[in-house]
Amino acid sequence: LRPFDILVASHGSLATSLVEAAAMICGTAPGVAAFGLARHDSPESLTAQVEASLGAGRPTLVLTDLYGGTPHNVVSRLARSSGGMVRIIAGANLGLLVEAIISDDPLDDVLVNRLVTLAREGVVDVTARLGE
Amino acid sequence: LRPFDILVASHGSLATSLVEAAAMICGTAPGVAAFGLARHDSPESLTAQVEASLGAGRPTLVLTDLYGGTPHNVVSRLARSSGGMVRIIAGANLGLLVEAIISDDPLDDVLVNRLVTLAREGVVDVTARLGE
Repeated sequence: LRPFDILVASHGSLATSLVEAAAMICGTAPGVAAFGLARHDSPESLTAQVEASLGAGRPTLVLTDLYGGTPHNVVSRLARSSGGMVRIIAGANLGLLVEAIISDDPLDDVLVNRLVTLAREGVVDVTARLGE
Repeated sequence: LRPFDILVASHGSLATSLVEAAAMICGTAPGVAAFGLARHDSPESLTAQVEASLGAGRPTLVLTDLYGGTPHNVVSRLARSSGGMVRIIAGANLGLLVEAIISDDPLDDVLVNRLVTLAREGVVDVTARLGE
């Protein structure tokens, strides 16, 4: 069993769609939450939602959609002050989320480095393989 | 102006959410289409939709959510037989889509390599930067 929670934060419905797409691949998993900043939401509304979730104190892997984006900045600020065991990876793609969900390793440097590597390796120029 | 179209293909609503999230960052852009394979859709229904879009013959950058996933496999097959100028990058994240949308370079090896590099560099372990 995965010994940490996963929290995905994004612009709009991207986090929710990532979680739903992952469920199509590896099934619905417990301990996975999605938060989105809608177009006319204030950053404060996202802060309030994420704060309640991170406040539970469980080790949490936070995935954000874009380094430097508002959702990323909001959760980074919260993680810094949470005092808990929070790790953040920006630039999430579906492969990263699936690998995180099916992981049963502790949330440490080894796991985070492996997930970052897998996510990067999952970005592939496929054209060469088409035989063009 | 970007001299190619962009087509995003995914599980569920992920492609649509990626396009909407990108619009929150760089505005709504012409020539960007999203196609999703819903849970109970057949691959053939996605094939039919994407075929019509690729059939226009415009140079097209295809972004897919996961290498080896059904949506990826469907569009790869179509791209191989399209005869047109189609490039495919798997493992899309939001940074990749935004960079593609705002690009005004021709759809060639140089651009595809640059986009892959940017997408990979956008996957970042941010924990170290939190001063933990």
